[in-house]
Amino acid sequence: MLEGLQMDVPLLVSTLLEHAERYHADIEVVARTIEGEVVRTSYAETGRRARRLAQALDRLGLARGERVGTLAWNTQRHLEMFYGVSGSGRVLHTINPRLFAKQLVYIINHAEDRALFLDAATLPLVEQLAPALRTVEHYVLMAPRERMPATTRLPGLLCQDELLAAEDGDYAWPSFDERSACSICYTSGTTGNPKGVVYSHRSSTLSTMLVHGFLGIGSRNGEQHVIMPLAPMFHANAWHLPYVAPMVGARLVLPGRNYEPDRLYELIEAEGVTLAGGVPSMWIILTDWLDQTGRRLSRLRTAVSSGSAPSRALMEKLAGHGVELMQAWGMTEVVAGSTATMAPGTADLPPAERIDRRMRSGRAQCGVRYRIVDAEERELPQDGVAVGHLRVKAPWAARAYFKGEGGSAVDADGWLKTGDVASIDPAGHLVLMDRSKDVIKSGGEWISSIELENLACGHPAVQLAAVIGVAHPKWQERPLLVVVRRPGASVTGAELVEFLSDKVARWWLPDDVAFVDALPMTATGKVSKLALRERFRDHVLPDAARRQA
Amino acid sequence: MLEGLQMDVPLLVSTLLEHAERYHADIEVVARTIEGEVVRTSYAETGRRARRLAQALDRLGLARGERVGTLAWNTQRHLEMFYGVSGSGRVLHTINPRLFAKQLVYIINHAEDRALFLDAATLPLVEQLAPALRTVEHYVLMAPRERMPATTRLPGLLCQDELLAAEDGDYAWPSFDERSACSICYTSGTTGNPKGVVYSHRSSTLSTMLVHGFLGIGSRNGEQHVIMPLAPMFHANAWHLPYVAPMVGARLVLPGRNYEPDRLYELIEAEGVTLAGGVPSMWIILTDWLDQTGRRLSRLRTAVSSGSAPSRALMEKLAGHGVELMQAWGMTEVVAGSTATMAPGTADLPPAERIDRRMRSGRAQCGVRYRIVDAEERELPQDGVAVGHLRVKAPWAARAYFKGEGGSAVDADGWLKTGDVASIDPAGHLVLMDRSKDVIKSGGEWISSIELENLACGHPAVQLAAVIGVAHPKWQERPLLVVVRRPGASVTGAELVEFLSDKVARWWLPDDVAFVDALPMTATGKVSKLALRERFRDHVLPDAARRQA
Repeated sequence: MLEGLQMDVPLLVSTLLEHAERYHADIEVVARTIEGEVVRTSYAETGRRARRLAQALDRLGLARGERVGTLAWNTQRHLEMFYGVSGSGRVLHTINPRLFAKQLVYIINHAEDRALFLDAATLPLVEQLAPALRTVEHYVLMAPRERMPATTRLPGLLCQDELLAAEDGDYAWPSFDERSACSICYTSGTTGNPKGVVYSHRSSTLSTMLVHGFLGIGSRNGEQHVIMPLAPMFHANAWHLPYVAPMVGARLVLPGRNYEPDRLYELIEAEGVTLAGGVPSMWIILTDWLDQTGRRLSRLRTAVSSGSAPSRALMEKLAGHGVELMQAWGMTEVVAGSTATMAPGTADLPPAERIDRRMRSGRAQCGVRYRIVDAEERELPQDGVAVGHLRVKAPWAARAYFKGEGGSAVDADGWLKTGDVASIDPAGHLVLMDRSKDVIKSGGEWISSIELENLACGHPAVQLAAVIGVAHPKWQERPLLVVVRRPGASVTGAELVEFLSDKVARWWLPDDVAFVDALPMTATGKVSKLALRERFRDHVLPDAARRQA
Repeated sequence: MLEGLQMDVPLLVSTLLEHAERYHADIEVVARTIEGEVVRTSYAETGRRARRLAQALDRLGLARGERVGTLAWNTQRHLEMFYGVSGSGRVLHTINPRLFAKQLVYIINHAEDRALFLDAATLPLVEQLAPALRTVEHYVLMAPRERMPATTRLPGLLCQDELLAAEDGDYAWPSFDERSACSICYTSGTTGNPKGVVYSHRSSTLSTMLVHGFLGIGSRNGEQHVIMPLAPMFHANAWHLPYVAPMVGARLVLPGRNYEPDRLYELIEAEGVTLAGGVPSMWIILTDWLDQTGRRLSRLRTAVSSGSAPSRALMEKLAGHGVELMQAWGMTEVVAGSTATMAPGTADLPPAERIDRRMRSGRAQCGVRYRIVDAEERELPQDGVAVGHLRVKAPWAARAYFKGEGGSAVDADGWLKTGDVASIDPAGHLVLMDRSKDVIKSGGEWISSIELENLACGHPAVQLAAVIGVAHPKWQERPLLVVVRRPGASVTGAELVEFLSDKVARWWLPDDVAFVDALPMTATGKVSKLALRERFRDHVLPDAARRQA
C-alpha cells in the first residue's frame, strides 16, 4: 500500500467544543437548573468552565482513562462535563438515576468511577448508595457554594464551583489517540447485570459529524436552529445532541429535570425550540397536555423520535401542530443507527403517505452496514419483505461490552447483534418488527408484539397494551394481549379481538386478552415484558385448554 | 488511556458507493460522453462497472498502492474510476490535460503511473506524450469497442469496455487501512515542478461525510438534489462531489467535456440541476451567455464557487436567476477548507447584506483549525481586522508532498502553509485578501491585488484586470494596474484611478495603469502573475521616475 500524506489529526470531541468556543462564542446555551431557574450562558462560557473542570480533575489526581461518573439531569453543568471530562482524556460515565439501587451500585463499582458528580436531585440517592461504592474517592455536588447542604452523609462532599474557582482556565485541550474511550453508558438488559458500552472519541465524533446533515441543521442559509434534547443525557448521551449543537452553532436548550409537560412547553415556546429529540412516551405526554389545555406549538418543527415505535396517531397529532415526527433507529450500542431522512425524491408525497414513510424507523445511514439474518444466520434479502434479525457494522458500533462482561456484543462474523427483528426495503428504510426476544414465534412464523400493541392502542378504551407470547401445545407460542383500560372505559376481550380483526392477518389475532390495573415497567420506563411473561407463565389460552381437555 | 470498545471499521471511499449501490440503486447518473451524447445510468450500474474495473486491474497485475492515471473529462467512465481504482486499493491519479506537455510528462513519470486511462478527447495528446512516459505499461481508451481508433501510436492500446466485458463483477470491495492513499492530484505551482498531494481514504471520506450537511443536501425531507460538478474531475477531484452525490442519493449530472455555455445550460435545464460547483470564470461565462440569449435558469438554486474570488456583480446576476452563489475556500492541499454556510442567525439578512456575507470565502469548518500569522510567525487575533498568512490543520489537509519533492507543505509547527493572506472574523468567516506571493507590500502595509482587480472590473470599459507590485525606491512595492479593455471601449489610466478613488484608501490607488491586448494565463486558466511580473519587471512608476529624476 501507499500511505496517504495527510495530517495525522485525531478525531476528538474537544474539537467540537473548541470550534464553538471560537466561532459560536456568543450563541446561547439555555438550561434549567435543578431548582428550576432558567440560566443563560454561551458556548464561550461553556468552554471556559469545561477547561477549568479539566484542570480541577488534574488537581484531584485523576489520570487519563479514569472514569468520572455523573448522576445528573440535563443541565448546563452536565453539558460542561461532556467536554471537561472527555476532552481532557478521562472517561465520562453518565448514569441513569432511575435505575434500581442494586443496579446503580453494580455499574458504579464495575466502571470503577473514581469521582462521582451528582446534583441536588440525586444527592439523597447517592447518600444511600455511597456505603456500597468501592471505588469512588471524590463526591462532587454540581452546585454553587451557596447551595451546598449544611450536612451530608457523603464523605468530604466537594462543591463543583469551588473546584472551578480554584483554576484559571488556561488549559489547552490535549491531543491523544482517537480510539481512546470517551464515555461509557450502561445498557440495562432485562436479564443479568447492566453492560457497559464504551464509546471512543472516534465513534462519537464521526457519528456527530455525519448526522448533522441528515438532521438538516447545517445552517447553509444562516438558519438559527434551536435544539432541545428531551432524551436525558444519561440515555445514550442524549443521542449526541450535546455534541451536535455546538458543532453547528445551534442554540442548545436543556430542560434540567423538569419533564412536566407544562415546564417543557414553557421552555419550548419561550426559547423558540425548532428541533427536539425524545422517546415517543415523552411526545405522548406533551401532546396529551396540549390537547387538554388547548395550547399550540408555534415554532417547533421537528420531533426526532427513537427508542420505540411511535403510533400513527401521535404523528398525526404532532403534524397538526406543524411538527414532523422523524424516526431514527439507534440503541446504546450504536447511537446513530439510521438517519431520520426521507428517501430522495419523496418530498412531494401526500401527507398520509409521508406519514407512512415516517412510520418506518428511518433509513440506512451511510457508514453503517446492515444485514438481516434468519435463525440459521443465513443472510436474507433487503427487499422490504424478508424479516430477520438485524445486524450492523459501523465505525460507531460497539464491538464488545466493558471488561467483556455481559456476553458478546457481536456475532461470529463481527456484526453487532442488535436484538431487533426487522426488514429493510430497497430505499433503505428500516421496518422494525419487534425485539428478537419479544417477537412471538407461532408455527414457524413471526408475529410482531409491537404492531399488535400499537393497533390495540388505537381502541378508545385502551390506555396501555402489551402483547406477549404464551406457550401453546401446537403452535409453540400464541399472542396474549394484556390491557390497561382507560379510567371509566369498558371493553371486553372479544370486542378488542374484533377491533383488530380487520387490521391484521387472522393468524396474528391474540388468542386471549387479559385486563390488568398496571403494567410492570423497567427502570428506563419501558414495559417489562420479562416481568409480564413471568406473571403469565402459567396462563392457559382458551384454545390450548380445549386441546388439553 | 482506556481503549474505546468500538468496531475497527475503516473509512474507505468504497463505503460511499456501496451505500448508493444498495440504497440509491435506481437514482440516475446522467453524463455526456466525449462525443456529446447524454447517457443515463444509475448508481447500481456505476457500481457494477466499477467492480468489473477493479477485477480488470487485478487481471492487468496492478498491485494495491500502484497508481492509475486518468487524462479524462467529467464522464460516467471517469466516475467509475473514482471507485474502481481507489475502492480496490489502487491510487487514482487524475491529471489535468490542459497542463503543458512538459508538466504532464513530469507528473506521470513522477507518480509512476502504471496504467493510463484516456478518452477520445485526450488521445491525441497522449499519443504525443507516450514516448517520454517511463512507467506506463497499459494505455486504456475509455470507450466502447466500436469507438476504438483504427490506428494509434500508443503501444497496445486497450479498450475499457473489452476489459470490463471479460469480468463478471462478482467482486467484494476490500477492506484496508484508511490511511492508505486514495488518489493523487498535482498542484501546478507557478514556479518549479508540480507537487503531488496524496489523499487518503480517511481524508476523502471524512471531508465528504462532513461536507454534505453544510451543502444542505442531506435529504431530511425527501428532497431530490441534482448535483453537477462543473469543476473538472482532475481539479481536486471535482471538489469531492463524485463522492458526496452517491452518499446522499443526489442525482449526478456530468457535462463531459462540453463546457460551452449553451451545452451546460441545456443539461442544467433538462436535468433540473439544483446545485452546481465551479470556479467563478465558469459562472461568468454562463451568465454572460444567459444575458446575451435572454435565457433563464429555472431550477438551479445553488452555485458553489471556489478557487478564486467572485465579483459582487456575478453574485447579483446569479441572484437575479434565483441562484445563490455560495463561496467556500479550499485548495488541492485541503479540499474542504471552509464551509459554504451563513453564520447561524443570519437567515433574515436583507439581500445586500446577505451578499456581503457571501463575498467572504465561507466559514470555518468544524474539524479544520485555522491560524493567521505575521511575517515573524506570530499568531494574530481572529478579529476580522488582523490580516496574516493563513495556516490550517485538519485530518484532511496535506502534511507533505509526494516523495517529499516540492518543498515542505507545512510550517515548523506542522500547520499547512496555504499561501493565502486572510483575516478571520469572530463568526468564522474567512476573508481572503490575496495570495501571499501576490499581495503588494507597500511601506510595511499590505495592499490586496485581488480587491483592486475586482473593483477595476466594475468599470464598464474593463474586460480583464490584473494588479501586480512593482519595485519602488521608497515604498518597496507599489501597485500597477494592467488592463485589457472591452472591445470597442476606451478609457484612460487616469480615468480608472479616478474610478477607484472613492472605493479604496488613497494609498491603495495604483501608481500606474498599463493597457495590454491579453493577459498571460496559466495552464489552469488563471492569470499568470509570475509572467506579468516578469514582463513589467523594469517598469518605472511615474512617482518613482520623479524621485529618481
